[in-house]
Amino acid sequence: MTKYQRIVLASRPRGAVVPENFRLEEAEVPALAEGQLLVRNHYLSLDPYMRGRMSEAKSYAVPQPLDETMIGGTVGEVVESRHPGFAVGEFVAGMFGWAEMGVSGGAGLRKVDTGAIPASAHLGVVGMPGMTAWYGMHEILRPALGETVVVSAASGAVGSAVGQLAKLAGCRAVGIAGGRAKCDYVVQELGFDACVDYKAGNLKADLAAATPDGIDAIFENVGGEVFDTALGRTNAFARVALCGLLAGYTGAEIPIRNAKKLLLSRIMLRGFIVTEHMDMWPQGLSDMGRLVAAGKLKYRESISQGLASAPDALIGLLQGRNFGKQLVKLI
Amino acid sequence: MTKYQRIVLASRPRGAVVPENFRLEEAEVPALAEGQLLVRNHYLSLDPYMRGRMSEAKSYAVPQPLDETMIGGTVGEVVESRHPGFAVGEFVAGMFGWAEMGVSGGAGLRKVDTGAIPASAHLGVVGMPGMTAWYGMHEILRPALGETVVVSAASGAVGSAVGQLAKLAGCRAVGIAGGRAKCDYVVQELGFDACVDYKAGNLKADLAAATPDGIDAIFENVGGEVFDTALGRTNAFARVALCGLLAGYTGAEIPIRNAKKLLLSRIMLRGFIVTEHMDMWPQGLSDMGRLVAAGKLKYRESISQGLASAPDALIGLLQGRNFGKQLVKLI
Repeated sequence: MTKYQRIVLASRPRGAVVPENFRLEEAEVPALAEGQLLVRNHYLSLDPYMRGRMSEAKSYAVPQPLDETMIGGTVGEVVESRHPGFAVGEFVAGMFGWAEMGVSGGAGLRKVDTGAIPASAHLGVVGMPGMTAWYGMHEILRPALGETVVVSAASGAVGSAVGQLAKLAGCRAVGIAGGRAKCDYVVQELGFDACVDYKAGNLKADLAAATPDGIDAIFENVGGEVFDTALGRTNAFARVALCGLLAGYTGAEIPIRNAKKLLLSRIMLRGFIVTEHMDMWPQGLSDMGRLVAAGKLKYRESISQGLASAPDALIGLLQGRNFGKQLVKLI
Repeated sequence: MTKYQRIVLASRPRGAVVPENFRLEEAEVPALAEGQLLVRNHYLSLDPYMRGRMSEAKSYAVPQPLDETMIGGTVGEVVESRHPGFAVGEFVAGMFGWAEMGVSGGAGLRKVDTGAIPASAHLGVVGMPGMTAWYGMHEILRPALGETVVVSAASGAVGSAVGQLAKLAGCRAVGIAGGRAKCDYVVQELGFDACVDYKAGNLKADLAAATPDGIDAIFENVGGEVFDTALGRTNAFARVALCGLLAGYTGAEIPIRNAKKLLLSRIMLRGFIVTEHMDMWPQGLSDMGRLVAAGKLKYRESISQGLASAPDALIGLLQGRNFGKQLVKLI
């Protein structure tokens, strides 16, 4: 292989992301310098944060530059190495982006064990989404035995891990998701105590029925009406881990109408970005890996085939069409 | 004296509080049982939380009952005692409400030193409002040297203490208040670095000019547009102590329009009620008392004369007409 494919950001979206925002290109595989390694990516991770990077608006991160390889987490195999710390055949998780191959000096790469844990899981439940769930639960929500934990986007990569961690902590786990199929999965396969289908049109009443003792902790991925409704059910001293605001990714305003409840329930809310807490990753990934290997954490993947499928897969993810962790299989 | 005056809640306000919501009554001074003491109140404290109690709406506290003495903090002198722990002539702070006298079994009373600190200050900067400022600063905002702290209702009992504590901690203290006179007071007499007059019509630009390095900590007493504007200036990892939402006390909806900023700035926000943290009061009151006695904490009082003036004084407080801690002098 002397050439590989990659996808660059061709233009910034106005509102919803469209396929024309991306461009597939061919690139030369570069010759390695001393201290570098070449990785052939097996899986590309698609995640909601990508929508934020595509905009020029001020965010916590620099925007994705135009005409450069789209950012993204990857897992792949070392196929050539001039780096003493990495051998051909080893698997590494990194940030090579929407590309079939990547060259690195080794910084930021994480060797992964593909024995007990499948390679793809290192982009999901034992990767960034899993760490996000773990960090929010351990460092912000810290639910006590018997408390009620509510998580939105419950069938997603982060949400599904949050609810299962809540169950393992002896809590009542209640999900919010879009559609009957996702809710059934969350309850029947992941073991949540209940799941509310926000598309069914009775969000407030259904959430009240699912949380008879109120809500003690909210893991928020969506924002907007879903978050306001959950806020309305909070008990005194509830905690909120604010992880994402999917409802606002298209630029829509998503006010918190129930602001008074923040005071009335004496809420502690914290917004967080898990990549700013890399010091916690070894502990968190070790915990999550152990649970996956022991069969105590289940996960589901939506896998689209081939790099060229990535734009449509991301658009689907942003519309909630995926079911579980969204990946692109490159090999 | 065999009779005393008190004010009861006659009806619940619909929207703004009106004088007709109250009724002045005469009551018999009861005979003391063994273990009781009789206090003649010198000062009654008026505070924004009273508006919340006047409503029947679910809150963190039970509503003020109709036809009973309005709730309120008081400081007064023991005039008769059958309690071994209290002697005639001692001063106590308590919650005797809108009444000239009160009988107590001693629980919840706090003996106060009126030597180095005037009696009225035990209802203000060395009382509940001062504790509120102290708790928010010490337990939630914890500003580091050189950080910018913004406080709304800056000339009020809580806000004025917050800004001065921020200065003592080596921070840039920026107030938000209504009107030129209050802002001048906050800067010239209390030593804040800047104060923005939200009534001047340029809140956003004026706050930007007053916070050139952004905002690291917000002590929020008001909510609504004032809070949204401050949120818009937050730096990464800013903290918010949510103490009151004056803007919403009349029942108006006060959405947080800038919800995305909670995530973008990775904000830690906590709503709190200082009376739920009584374990911290001894340390806080000792700190605040020492600062007042040493002349390092200034405060201002708005004193209205006589129990009958309390309803108008509370209405004025809720409209921002007071200037400093609002008290009613009963003797």
